[in-house]
Amino acid sequence: MSTGLFPFVGLPLPRISPKPKAITRDDRFEVIVIGAGPAGLMMTFLLARYGLTAESVPCIDAKANRRSSLARTTTPSSRYPHVVTIHQGKVEQILEAGLLQYYATGVQRRSRLVDAYIDSAGDVEFPVVAKVERDGVVKTLRSKYLVGADGAHSAVRRAVGLELEGNGPDEVWGALDLVVDTDFPDIRRRSLIRSRHGTVFVIPRERNASGEYLTRLYVRMPYELCGFEYAGECGLSLRDRTNSNAIFEQACRVLGPFHLGLRGAVEWWSCYQIRQRILKQYVVSDADDIGRIFLVGDGMNVSMMDAYNLGWKLAYSIMGLTPVSLDSLQQDEILKSYHCERFPIAQQLIEFDRQYAAKFAAAKEMSLCEDRSTSGVNSILGCRRRINAFSSGCGIEYSESILTTKAGQAISFSGSCLLALTPGTRLPNVRLKRYADGEYCDLHDEMISNGRFRVLCLASSDFLSSDGVSARALHWIGEALLPHFPGDVIEQFVIYPSEQCPRDWSCLPSSVKCHSEMRLYDGSAVQDAYEQFGVDIHHGALVILRPDGHIGMIASLEGHAVLDDYFTSCLRRRCE
Amino acid sequence: MSTGLFPFVGLPLPRISPKPKAITRDDRFEVIVIGAGPAGLMMTFLLARYGLTAESVPCIDAKANRRSSLARTTTPSSRYPHVVTIHQGKVEQILEAGLLQYYATGVQRRSRLVDAYIDSAGDVEFPVVAKVERDGVVKTLRSKYLVGADGAHSAVRRAVGLELEGNGPDEVWGALDLVVDTDFPDIRRRSLIRSRHGTVFVIPRERNASGEYLTRLYVRMPYELCGFEYAGECGLSLRDRTNSNAIFEQACRVLGPFHLGLRGAVEWWSCYQIRQRILKQYVVSDADDIGRIFLVGDGMNVSMMDAYNLGWKLAYSIMGLTPVSLDSLQQDEILKSYHCERFPIAQQLIEFDRQYAAKFAAAKEMSLCEDRSTSGVNSILGCRRRINAFSSGCGIEYSESILTTKAGQAISFSGSCLLALTPGTRLPNVRLKRYADGEYCDLHDEMISNGRFRVLCLASSDFLSSDGVSARALHWIGEALLPHFPGDVIEQFVIYPSEQCPRDWSCLPSSVKCHSEMRLYDGSAVQDAYEQFGVDIHHGALVILRPDGHIGMIASLEGHAVLDDYFTSCLRRRCE
Repeated sequence: MSTGLFPFVGLPLPRISPKPKAITRDDRFEVIVIGAGPAGLMMTFLLARYGLTAESVPCIDAKANRRSSLARTTTPSSRYPHVVTIHQGKVEQILEAGLLQYYATGVQRRSRLVDAYIDSAGDVEFPVVAKVERDGVVKTLRSKYLVGADGAHSAVRRAVGLELEGNGPDEVWGALDLVVDTDFPDIRRRSLIRSRHGTVFVIPRERNASGEYLTRLYVRMPYELCGFEYAGECGLSLRDRTNSNAIFEQACRVLGPFHLGLRGAVEWWSCYQIRQRILKQYVVSDADDIGRIFLVGDGMNVSMMDAYNLGWKLAYSIMGLTPVSLDSLQQDEILKSYHCERFPIAQQLIEFDRQYAAKFAAAKEMSLCEDRSTSGVNSILGCRRRINAFSSGCGIEYSESILTTKAGQAISFSGSCLLALTPGTRLPNVRLKRYADGEYCDLHDEMISNGRFRVLCLASSDFLSSDGVSARALHWIGEALLPHFPGDVIEQFVIYPSEQCPRDWSCLPSSVKCHSEMRLYDGSAVQDAYEQFGVDIHHGALVILRPDGHIGMIASLEGHAVLDDYFTSCLRRRCE
Repeated sequence: MSTGLFPFVGLPLPRISPKPKAITRDDRFEVIVIGAGPAGLMMTFLLARYGLTAESVPCIDAKANRRSSLARTTTPSSRYPHVVTIHQGKVEQILEAGLLQYYATGVQRRSRLVDAYIDSAGDVEFPVVAKVERDGVVKTLRSKYLVGADGAHSAVRRAVGLELEGNGPDEVWGALDLVVDTDFPDIRRRSLIRSRHGTVFVIPRERNASGEYLTRLYVRMPYELCGFEYAGECGLSLRDRTNSNAIFEQACRVLGPFHLGLRGAVEWWSCYQIRQRILKQYVVSDADDIGRIFLVGDGMNVSMMDAYNLGWKLAYSIMGLTPVSLDSLQQDEILKSYHCERFPIAQQLIEFDRQYAAKFAAAKEMSLCEDRSTSGVNSILGCRRRINAFSSGCGIEYSESILTTKAGQAISFSGSCLLALTPGTRLPNVRLKRYADGEYCDLHDEMISNGRFRVLCLASSDFLSSDGVSARALHWIGEALLPHFPGDVIEQFVIYPSEQCPRDWSCLPSSVKCHSEMRLYDGSAVQDAYEQFGVDIHHGALVILRPDGHIGMIASLEGHAVLDDYFTSCLRRRCE
């Protein structure tokens, strides 16, 4: 793994559970991942980084090589305040390059899942059966878990008999990549144009090979232009029913009276049937109600976040780091939380889409000549902001569970700040100055995806006082909390107020240097972390972060003992 | 080249000259690059990006694969205000990955240069002869030019009989990579420690495979510890004369009374003999005084900058873009400028090193207990700053030449600002807001290394006036300047004052959208470009940038006609 040429990305998690005896056989695995799109690659890559070995996590894909289709783009609004448009192919390339650092073999392609089911009687340690066909030969594989990340027409979903539910109206959208010649003034900005002729989204793209700027147009197609009645299952032949000319002409109609011309040929086009239906159940369990087959959502954005939520939970369970994980007949609450956390997100997203479409239909026609500040448009923009917050992950809040304790939220927080810490949401970023070397850094960059829990201590204004509340909390964390859990599964981060900057290490409890030499930061040298996070500098706070970056719990410095309860319910304690 | 998965990095330069007829033979080339270290790879990569084809620019290296040695690190202080420590191997990996986008074959390794000389009589179009041995077979290659980028013990330098000159005293330094256990408080910062026992540089490094932070120590070795008299040519056996224990023990002596312990083993060590000698002549010319063999300096930092200076000049000359470049018997002033510009830099660097060492020897002993603000220390720090400015390239100023016209400097500039524009220096970065899409961007990122000249127009406060001085200058550039030079070899960039933000494109001369739709910026929305560059907003300015980012000329908006003189002396005019 480490060749010295790649940046250090964290050690594997410690493994408490024994490695399965049968794992040397070539038909027994810990996790089988179906699908090598962004979510499947993300899942396999994370499991590799967390410490599962190459032999135990095959990633299987039906296609011979990379997809050529392009996905819609994400709109992060947090650590990176940019709008980024990236090929799905590029995302896959980045993830696969990461994966190849761990697994020289990479993805097993041209291998099609033909069946998947649970058969605990056949092998209790490897209860999931996956039948995979390659070159006409069907091989039977077994695993502890199987992840279905094979997209909209998931073979896993079909094999286990899960249906999509919901009955919103379908829509057909055409998409074009082209070099335009236009006097429409906002052609280089993301814009949404609605006229009496219809709706067009404009998404500026990168340059093509000739150096000209591409534009992506999404064009909602009127019923009569698709040559057929919209219906649920004719999506596969949709491309045959329209063409790039029809899509371009519809775009011209919507943009009129502005001129829309085409320079050269249309570089790429496609059309989509958008369905408002979702999977009701993300997990298929065995007879003991233990989840064995996991599905991730459809669509690059949601499915990658699903994989990020599930990855560490699978790794913790397999490696024996959760409390019950050495007993294969007990339900693992950590694994169960996957469906509980992610299913409501899919529901909320559908609901947002529905509201957005409804608001859109109700709003007056938008044109550049009209007043943009009408309440209808504002309401649309507000809705769009919530969708953006969703896309970036910053607007997602998981509900109360074993992993998310909401109670502490009110203890020591001064309410009304923009990025106030809220259990269940992602920790917002803040820019800090590292004590050991004086470098400026972003807290998000410091918290690499290494599968660890974190305790973030925002020390109070008595940080330098050896019997102050901060010193006592830090001493307790170093001496009475961290040693009770395996290896380095919990990392300590410490932020202090500028005026409490220690002269040298001897001014601090020794556990601070021992556990967080390179994770000690001046919290007001660049941005004011206390103000940003809404933490009272006189009281400080303790924050538990889950391996996926969401806030698990907030506690006061005095009330530090509750951290032990949280971790004891999520993590195996060391034998003492 | 463009697979859609890599960012667009610019089109190749237009080629005016005919492709050589003999280039399909496998022993005739346009440029042969000797050495696949950072400078050789940089040179080959640039020539490929500028448009020379794979077959015509082989890069040849004697070694079987990547070097394992590590170079000292750079300290950029400009666009990226970070201190970065990167393996030379990583730099080579990045450059070679870039090269492979153009040349599937990549570097030709295990091929050793045995001789190189000029023989115009043998083939006037390909006057350079290179004899290259691989697997015991010597092959004779011919090329128009040859670049020697093969480091301190250059075979090219030996073949053409160039000597290093100078007679400063040699020094021996040991280097260690290790995980330290120390109470020295600044161990995570770059520090320079000098005690009565000697000198140590501390350079914090990345984490090792176990997650521990490495420290690089450079330790000046006292004569008696190397077991021999320092002498010019015994460098090769230097490693046999000392060992990592001796270096570590010397570091411990210097750092005392602080404790310096070793955790685990020393991960890597080496020692260097530092010579104060330089090459007096960078170019070997043929009988017509046309430069044919070019040498780049030794050391990663200087040699890469040498390659960056030379690369575009070679490409322009070969592709027929310089005024005389279609006449093989005339000296090309652009190519001649390589030695004139880069040789003084090597001289200055040696001189800085000498002053630095002298100041250092004169200064009082530094220890943490002493007052750091003594004049001796300040003088050292000032000297260090100048060296850093050198490393980052920001402190380098080329003198008056065909490529650098100093005269205009005083015309329209308001003197005393930090980043004032100076012909011969690099254009400083500034953060801008792009007009077309409202995105914030860094001017340096917008000016990708695509081998183009640029005209940067800092429009004046009458930008929106159709008969104002800005509009007249832009109209002239678009109609009377750019069309006279080949293809898109000159790019136009336009910056305007915030209060002159155009409502839409129709408020501007049509040439602005035509030549710089995505290169038009609000110059005071983020940082104030006028203030940063010291340009009077009422007068504006025109700046010519060379393909290597250095400022070629500054002119007033009214005096725009001098731009034509500059370009006519550097570039071939179109046939009219």
